[in-house]
Order: sequence, then structure tokens, then C-alpha cells
Amino acid sequence: MADKPSIPKGTRDFSPLEMTRRNHIFDTIRRIFQVHGFLPIETPAMEKLSSLMGKYGDEWDKLLFKVLNSGDFKAKLSTEELNQTSGKLGTKISEKGLRYDLTVPFARFVVQHRNEITFPFKRYQIQPVWRADRPQRGRYREFYQCDVDVIGSDSLLNEFELIQIIDEVFEALGLKVQILLNNRKVLAGIAEMIGSPDQMTAITVAIDKLEKIGHEGVLSELKQKGLSKDSCDKLEPLLQLEGPGLEKLEKLGGILEGSEIGMKGLAELRHLLEYVETDPVTCTLEFDLTLARGLNYYTGSILEVKSAEVAIGSICGGGRYDDLTGIFGLEGVSGVGISFGADRIYDVMLQLDRFPKRAALDTTLLFVNFGEAEVKHIIPILGHLRKYGIASELYPEQAKMKKQMAYADKREIPFVALVGEQEVKDGVVTLKEMETGKQERLGPEELVQRLSSAK
Amino acid sequence: MADKPSIPKGTRDFSPLEMTRRNHIFDTIRRIFQVHGFLPIETPAMEKLSSLMGKYGDEWDKLLFKVLNSGDFKAKLSTEELNQTSGKLGTKISEKGLRYDLTVPFARFVVQHRNEITFPFKRYQIQPVWRADRPQRGRYREFYQCDVDVIGSDSLLNEFELIQIIDEVFEALGLKVQILLNNRKVLAGIAEMIGSPDQMTAITVAIDKLEKIGHEGVLSELKQKGLSKDSCDKLEPLLQLEGPGLEKLEKLGGILEGSEIGMKGLAELRHLLEYVETDPVTCTLEFDLTLARGLNYYTGSILEVKSAEVAIGSICGGGRYDDLTGIFGLEGVSGVGISFGADRIYDVMLQLDRFPKRAALDTTLLFVNFGEAEVKHIIPILGHLRKYGIASELYPEQAKMKKQMAYADKREIPFVALVGEQEVKDGVVTLKEMETGKQERLGPEELVQRLSSAK
Repeated sequence: MADKPSIPKGTRDFSPLEMTRRNHIFDTIRRIFQVHGFLPIETPAMEKLSSLMGKYGDEWDKLLFKVLNSGDFKAKLSTEELNQTSGKLGTKISEKGLRYDLTVPFARFVVQHRNEITFPFKRYQIQPVWRADRPQRGRYREFYQCDVDVIGSDSLLNEFELIQIIDEVFEALGLKVQILLNNRKVLAGIAEMIGSPDQMTAITVAIDKLEKIGHEGVLSELKQKGLSKDSCDKLEPLLQLEGPGLEKLEKLGGILEGSEIGMKGLAELRHLLEYVETDPVTCTLEFDLTLARGLNYYTGSILEVKSAEVAIGSICGGGRYDDLTGIFGLEGVSGVGISFGADRIYDVMLQLDRFPKRAALDTTLLFVNFGEAEVKHIIPILGHLRKYGIASELYPEQAKMKKQMAYADKREIPFVALVGEQEVKDGVVTLKEMETGKQERLGPEELVQRLSSAK
Repeated sequence: MADKPSIPKGTRDFSPLEMTRRNHIFDTIRRIFQVHGFLPIETPAMEKLSSLMGKYGDEWDKLLFKVLNSGDFKAKLSTEELNQTSGKLGTKISEKGLRYDLTVPFARFVVQHRNEITFPFKRYQIQPVWRADRPQRGRYREFYQCDVDVIGSDSLLNEFELIQIIDEVFEALGLKVQILLNNRKVLAGIAEMIGSPDQMTAITVAIDKLEKIGHEGVLSELKQKGLSKDSCDKLEPLLQLEGPGLEKLEKLGGILEGSEIGMKGLAELRHLLEYVETDPVTCTLEFDLTLARGLNYYTGSILEVKSAEVAIGSICGGGRYDDLTGIFGLEGVSGVGISFGADRIYDVMLQLDRFPKRAALDTTLLFVNFGEAEVKHIIPILGHLRKYGIASELYPEQAKMKKQMAYADKREIPFVALVGEQEVKDGVVTLKEMETGKQERLGPEELVQRLSSAK
């Protein structure tokens, strides 16, 4: 036999069991997006490279999967062009790439369709993305993102709604989580107060590592990046702020008093927490000054969600961006959004055994196939059951009883129906419950009732 | 402003309205697949080129979108290799391609996971595919396929179940359709009877065009392809068979008597029609000798579905293949499957105006935003409504009434809630029905009841 076929590294097949579990996550997320009035969109897997490249910097461009132009792609290339580096040649022979997130395509969508969109635009999008990252445990080259954004409104009610959505999603999935909250304006204020506003990125990147490398590690990294000793001294007490979230906010208020942007960030945080008080969340919500989030486009609130039960990093995150559509030429449109990491959520749920035991739409009943005469008796009963939404199958072959029962067993079908000569004559079905072995003789209507209640 | 961004030709963005309509089609199909006990799988968008190429011939290979190897893809290429034709160079600098159907990935999946699969394996798969075809009206470079297959059983009960699924899907979508049925063995028998078994492909390809070019056109095409005058004379009466399906089957029985394979095909057709008689379909089901279907891998039953109301070609089709997994080295596994063409079904439904007027999960209620004090009163009511599954929104900005009402209007939200100072004091909500303009003052519980019944 030929070599066993396989799939590209970093990609996955999903078996029926995995699909059922993944759909449980997607359906839960989708249902909650919808009840909040968010609308679905989808964008193509391939975008023009001109839309994808140069958006977040070279590092990101390297993660792009480029699609080779179809037809005679090298027809118009000179020998010189053909001998360029792979990087340059790549953009000559490919015009399209696979999207690596849903944010850039969303920004492109908003700009392209701005005349058809009703703003504020509340959209969600659940689609795969592709990244030419080095595959490793828990990191794939194809994975799904579940994004939800409001664009065209700078009200903090939007941030509040996203916090509610996070709370509702994880409550519905049965997971305990912690939401960490910060604001980029506060980080900008800190940079301003310590006299290094131009160092804001370096500061946030370093602060982001506080949990990993400790406050001394952060300071030594910043010194390396050229932050003055004076600035570092001013930063140190901030890194050691203690106490519950609101208390930290108060302390910070004292420190940031001289920074307009810092105070604005603090006011936003306070306002948002006031909204939360009107309808408290069930999960933990905490102000975390050390939360910075890597992406450059955030300008206001930022948040991240961690499992309170499994150490796996962020399972959801996002923030406010004041100029995302600017990359496509439409300036001054504020938005805020979050992205659920379906793969990590899956891993957490699997580890904690939180998936429902049975999907509602798994097959409930298998009719054993005893031969043509019985089959013709069974067919209309099957149709009747399915009309009532009871997922039912007839084993397609007149195979040995043992084989048919093994199929029911492996598929974990809870009921088997036996219809032999006697049952045909009496117009009944012998229903066997697999778990208990208990058998009942039921007419077609009784069968529907029995299985509807068992579903 | 920069140029308006755009997407690659042949691809599409889907707006919320289009998504809602497409999901109506997908959800209907999925529900019916599931009630028949079919299980979902998904495969990666990218497959190895070695899995995709050489499966159906060169014509198909040209339709592949190849993905450029990441990193320094030309590092190991000699100058000689670099100067090869685009076709040869393409396979040197790309190892992966986007799937162009769901059948090849399914065959690969079955072979790769054969030890984990319970046979007969009833699977469905709803995912996009990509083809580097010339884009034209109704033909896209990215489109969804909805495939359902049973593999590992040669029982005609499987064909029957697929016919039931077709009938149930189109009935649920409110479309009148016609199922055309034939069997490749009958076509093989015809080729055998007219003394040209090696010409079977040429004959089926020509017969496939009967409707377009008439029986004389078919005969002249076959003569051109080298079919003898004697063979053509024998074929002519077959092309002119008249009468209802079963009658044609009888006449054909007389003609094919000497061909074992032909008689086997006829017996299969009869057997299948007997199953249908036990639980008749609501759509039209017809034996059509001229149905051949292009793909080479079919070996038994073949079928195609046409709209009875709109002339648009096939909207669903498929058949039995006895050796699909053979292309990946696993011989002798019989399967049968069909594929629903979601895009054409969409076009038919749009043309006939058969989409439901409102999706069940569109926003039902918008709270007008009169300011902070009222908002804080509204937030818990919003949470309450959403718990009951009533999709509700609060306009995020304290904008002018006119702007907020315009939003409700454009979004086609049927109810608006007005909560001003007086309502806060009285603990009620003024509910306005947009269509009638009728207003009611309701407490939170009454509001839930009113909107639950209106959903």
C-alpha cells in the first residue's frame, strides 16, 4: 500500500467528537453575540497582499502564507527579478495571501462597505486564520478566531457590553475566569510622568513581563533600553502597587495627577467599573496595571481573560483602537473589540472535563437490519421519528447482529430498535436501552414519546 | 484618501443580511444531516499538493491555488530549476495547496484515520473550497460545499437515504425540485451492447449533452470520436426512449438483456425505486438515461437535482463510487455521496423570494439612550431580557432621538424602548412597536412576556 497520507504540519483534521465539542464552544459564543445584537459577517480566506502587508510590521509579514499567482506566474519576470531574494520574488509571483487575523480584514471590510453599513456597527466574525508560525504544542498554523467588535462609537458602554459578553460566555461554558483590565492612556500617562513619553512602547512591553521576570527584571530591561535612572526610580513604586483594584486606582490618581492623558485613562477605568456595578459580573474583574498587550493599535481600554482553573495564558483579549480603519485610509473611527481563542478554550474545557456528555443531535436510535421485509416496514417509522427531530438510523446492511450492535456501541447510540417478523405482524418495535439492557414493545407513537423524553 | 481597498476577484464579503440568509440554508441542511445520523468532520484548508494533484487529471490540477513555501523558498533551487516553466517551478516552491473540493480531503481523511473510524461512516462536511477558475456570474473562486457521504457500505439503502435527505432539505427550504436518477452500470451496459465498451466515457460525455444538442448532435459527436455507424444505429433508439421513468426502465431491460453489468444497473435502479415507494418523496423523482455526470470516479447510482422553478442547472448532485479511497492506497471501499451547491440554492431562493422575512435571532428591541441616569436603570433590564433569549441593545451614545430611531429603522429592529425620568420613577418601560407606532407602558416582567410572544 502507498504511504499513509498526511496533512501539512501545524494543521488538523477534526473528528466528529472534536467537531461536536468545538461546535459547543462556537454555538455558545454565537448565541451570546446574537442576544447582544451583534451581526455576523464573513470575509474571504484570501486577501490581497497589499491589504495584509505592512500593517503591524515585518514580524507579522513573515507570518503570511502567500498564494502563488495562478497560470504562468513567471511569464513577465526578467532574469534579474527571478534572481532576487525569496522575500522580493515572493511578492512578484503572489498577489494574494491567507488572512492571519480577523482584525485587518474587518478594517478593510468597514472601509470598503462604509456606505452600506449602519453605524455603530456591531459585528461578529468566526472564521479560521492562518499563520506561518513554527508549530508547537497548542500553537497551530490554522486556527479559529471568534471576534466581536463595535465600530463607530467611543462610548464606554461598548467596553461594558464586551465584559458582559465575556462573563456570559464563560458562565455558559462552565468555566471560572478572571478578567484583567487596564487602559493604554494610563500607560501613556505613566510614560509621561516619568519623563519618557517616547518610551511608552518600551515601557509597556517591559511591564507586560512583570509577572514573569519580577519588578527588578522589568527595571533592568528598561535601563538597557536607555531609560534614565531617574525615570526608573519614578516607575518602581508603580510596579509595586498593592491592594484591590479600586484602591490601586486611587493611589495611581495621586501619582498621575500631572498627566492629562493618564487622568483621562483613570477616569475611563472608573466609569467602566461604575457600569459594571449596575449589573455585576459573576467572574472576577480586576484592574491590572501590568497588563499592556502587544498590539500597537490599542489606544484606550485593554483587557485579557485568564482561566482561574488552568494555567494556559490568555483565552480571550482585546481593547479599544481609535484608528484601526486609518490603515485603509478612513481616519477617526473609534472601535473596541475582543477575540475569543477557541483552541485554548477547548484545551481548558477538555482538561477540566466540562464538555456536555452528549451532543443534543447525536443519533438517539439505531434500527437493526434483519432483511428486506423488515426494512420496508421500518422506513416509514424512521421518517416519522425524524419528523419529530429524533436522530435515527437504520443499519444499511443485513449484517450479523453482533456487528450491528458493535456499531451502536462504538457510536454510543443509547437506543436500539429490533423489528423482526413478529414485530412487523404486531405493528410494534422492540426498543432496547443500551445502558440498562431493558426492553419495551412500543407502537410508533409511543416510540416517539419515549424517545422525545430521552433525548 | 487612499484607494478604496478591495478583495481578490472571484471572492466575496458577506454582509449580515447575506450571512443570515446563507446560515438559513446551512442550518437547514445541517439539521437534516444530523437527524439522519450523519456526523460532522472538518479538514484543513491547505492540503499537501501530493494529496491534491493528479487526482482527476491535468484540468483539475490547473484549478489549484498553490501556497508558496514560507521562509527562503528558493534557497535550495539551482539556476536551472529556477528557469523551468511556471508549472514545474510552482511545485518546487510550493508544497501545499487550497482544497478544491471536499471529496479528495474526505478520501484522504478516511484512509489516514481508518483505524479510528466506525464503518459504515456517515459523515457530513460544510466548508469552503477554492478554485482558480475564471470568475463569472454565479461562479466564484471561493465557495462553500455541503457534502454528505456514507462510506463502507454498498447497500442501496444509502442511496435511498440521500434521496430522502434531498427531499427533506428542499421541502424545508420551500423549493420545488426534480431529482434525476441514473446508474453508471446502465451506461456501461449500453456501451457494451453497442459493441464499444472502451468508448463508455465518450458515450456518456456525449449523452450528457442530449438536452443541449439533441440526439442528432450526440450521434454526430460520437461519429467524430470514432464510434462505428453500426454502434450509432444501435444507440439511436435509446436516445429516443419515451414515457415515464419506470416504463423506460422496462424498455431498456429488453435492450440490455445481453449485458450483465447493464442488467445489474437496471436491477439497482429498480431496487432503489422500490425503497422510495415505501415512503414516497414529495419532490419529482425521475429516471433519466441521459444523466451521465462528469466525474470519472462514479461507478453506480448517479443523481442530480434541478430547481423546478428556476433554470439554473444542477443545485445538488452526486453518486456512488466504488474506489475513491483507492487514490490514497486503500482499495475496495464503496461509498456514496452528494453535494449541495449552497451558492446556487441561495440564488434560487433569492430569485423566488423564499427567505424568511426575519431571522429568529435578529435584534428584537433597542433601548433609546437618554443619558447616564437612565442607562444605569436600563442595564439590569437588558440583562434580564437577554437571559430570556430576547436579543436587545442599548444605543451606546446619548445621541439625538432622530439618529437613534434611524438606527432602529435601518437595522429593522421591530421594538424600541423609551426610558426617561418618569419611567425610571415608575419602574416601567415605554415600549413602542415600530410598524404600528403603538405604545405601551410595561414592567420588566410584562416586557419579557410581550417580547417573547413577538419574537
